[in-house]
Amino acid sequence: MRGLEVPDDAPIVLAVSGGADSVALLRGAAHLVASGRRAWRLTVAHLDHQLRPESAVDADAVRDMAAALHLPFEIGRTDVGALATAERRSIEEAGREARYRFLATVAGDEGWVATAHTLDDSVETVLLNLLRGSGLGGVGGIPARRGRIVRPLLRARRDELRTVLDQAGIAYRDDPSNTDPAYLRNRVRAELLPMLESLRPGAIEAIGRFAALAADDDALLDDVAAIERSRRTGADGIDWRDPPGRAIGRRVLRQAIGEPAPNAERIEALLVAAETGRGGAVIELGGGRRATIRDRRIRIGE
Amino acid sequence: MRGLEVPDDAPIVLAVSGGADSVALLRGAAHLVASGRRAWRLTVAHLDHQLRPESAVDADAVRDMAAALHLPFEIGRTDVGALATAERRSIEEAGREARYRFLATVAGDEGWVATAHTLDDSVETVLLNLLRGSGLGGVGGIPARRGRIVRPLLRARRDELRTVLDQAGIAYRDDPSNTDPAYLRNRVRAELLPMLESLRPGAIEAIGRFAALAADDDALLDDVAAIERSRRTGADGIDWRDPPGRAIGRRVLRQAIGEPAPNAERIEALLVAAETGRGGAVIELGGGRRATIRDRRIRIGE
Repeated sequence: MRGLEVPDDAPIVLAVSGGADSVALLRGAAHLVASGRRAWRLTVAHLDHQLRPESAVDADAVRDMAAALHLPFEIGRTDVGALATAERRSIEEAGREARYRFLATVAGDEGWVATAHTLDDSVETVLLNLLRGSGLGGVGGIPARRGRIVRPLLRARRDELRTVLDQAGIAYRDDPSNTDPAYLRNRVRAELLPMLESLRPGAIEAIGRFAALAADDDALLDDVAAIERSRRTGADGIDWRDPPGRAIGRRVLRQAIGEPAPNAERIEALLVAAETGRGGAVIELGGGRRATIRDRRIRIGE
Repeated sequence: MRGLEVPDDAPIVLAVSGGADSVALLRGAAHLVASGRRAWRLTVAHLDHQLRPESAVDADAVRDMAAALHLPFEIGRTDVGALATAERRSIEEAGREARYRFLATVAGDEGWVATAHTLDDSVETVLLNLLRGSGLGGVGGIPARRGRIVRPLLRARRDELRTVLDQAGIAYRDDPSNTDPAYLRNRVRAELLPMLESLRPGAIEAIGRFAALAADDDALLDDVAAIERSRRTGADGIDWRDPPGRAIGRRVLRQAIGEPAPNAERIEALLVAAETGRGGAVIELGGGRRATIRDRRIRIGE
């Protein structure tokens, strides 16, 4: 976790599914502590998603790994399938949120959380967002750090980690849901990444570097937009009499509208209506919100 | 050429290779004129790249197409293979430059140029740049307009154009170099685009929309950087005592260095050296240029 500014004696919760990536994270962190190079207080945490009958076996395997390394182990259990149905979300989304909620609980107020995301995960995310339709905000990849969540393996290729574990004779679990072609991410992983690398060796690293640059650019544009938004916002709404360029205009509007974010078509419709200054235009923004344009000022409301 | 702000009576040079895309451009533009909806003065222009023995046959076919539509025809001939060797450039680059030079000559001072680039071409360019390593500047795709060069088919899929021509019984030439797998672009076209579309129907359109947003964002960031650069530039060089963020810093430096652009590693090295304020650091920039850092000011010179 070099370069991630985690204090040398921090309490760190390691998110361990039992798959190759997270076992590499666990073994790497444990090695740095055992060799005296770090004084982290490590905890192994595993959330049983209860999506497969054998998930309890995975949990037991991770418990054994922690015990072998003399590390404390915390387990959580969430019926992610039921949660997804109840909340009308995808299994992936519901699982991700349940996982981070669990990890935050284990970490408490003082602890850090380390996840085993790799370069492959980050590039998969970039490509998924490109395929599904995204602006710059979607192609920044997975951040190496967000708050006290860190991802020390984010520059490693998944295959490299697997090779290291195999050569060292370290066991890990294969999660069959990672190869289920019903998930678009798994097809991106199994089909698209290898094709990109075959077209141009080094492509995955190149996309990873692109993502890092894009994330920086996106953050900068958000800062520029925040200044512009504040400059334009008054008691009468957002002043659009001297319209900004489209790139900044889109962001000002997206910031003003907030969550849930309307889709790109709504934002473009609002931009066009505001620029052409149609008096009294109303643009529906979803979630019961609407933008009203009057005298070339935009008001966002219910 | 709706929305591209070409005057209704403009002289327009149509770049026609004889392939499906350019035949669609030719027939579409000719139809708009013949039906009286535009008064463009059209000229058909064809550059014989002399890369294949049968290239003269293609030129004759385009000449016949122009004659059948009663349009003037201009031909140029460039030995692109010899040019590429002499200038140590790729065949593709040498061909592109020769083509635009020829088209500009035919158009003269007053004329416009229309090329037949499609959404497929633009998305191919985005993906090629992603594969080869690129920042935001490389993923904006092909611009719909640059100066008096316009690309009216940039929202159309190549297959759609082909279908329209086939259904109308309009003949076009197949250029075998467009399917030669020795060119990375052709493999992107033949293998990658179909895979993306199979993973997620609509993916190509989604990437096209991403590219348009990215191009806007990139132009905005260049504007922000130009202001920042001008603010920081004085007789002692570029003032880096209060360093800007990395996203803006990269662009300020790239603008200050100009062409030929150094690669991303050089820019990052310069950024790090300037931020850490190493006295007297010198960073080579290629092309005999170097950056010298002294007193946290950067000078670019020979």
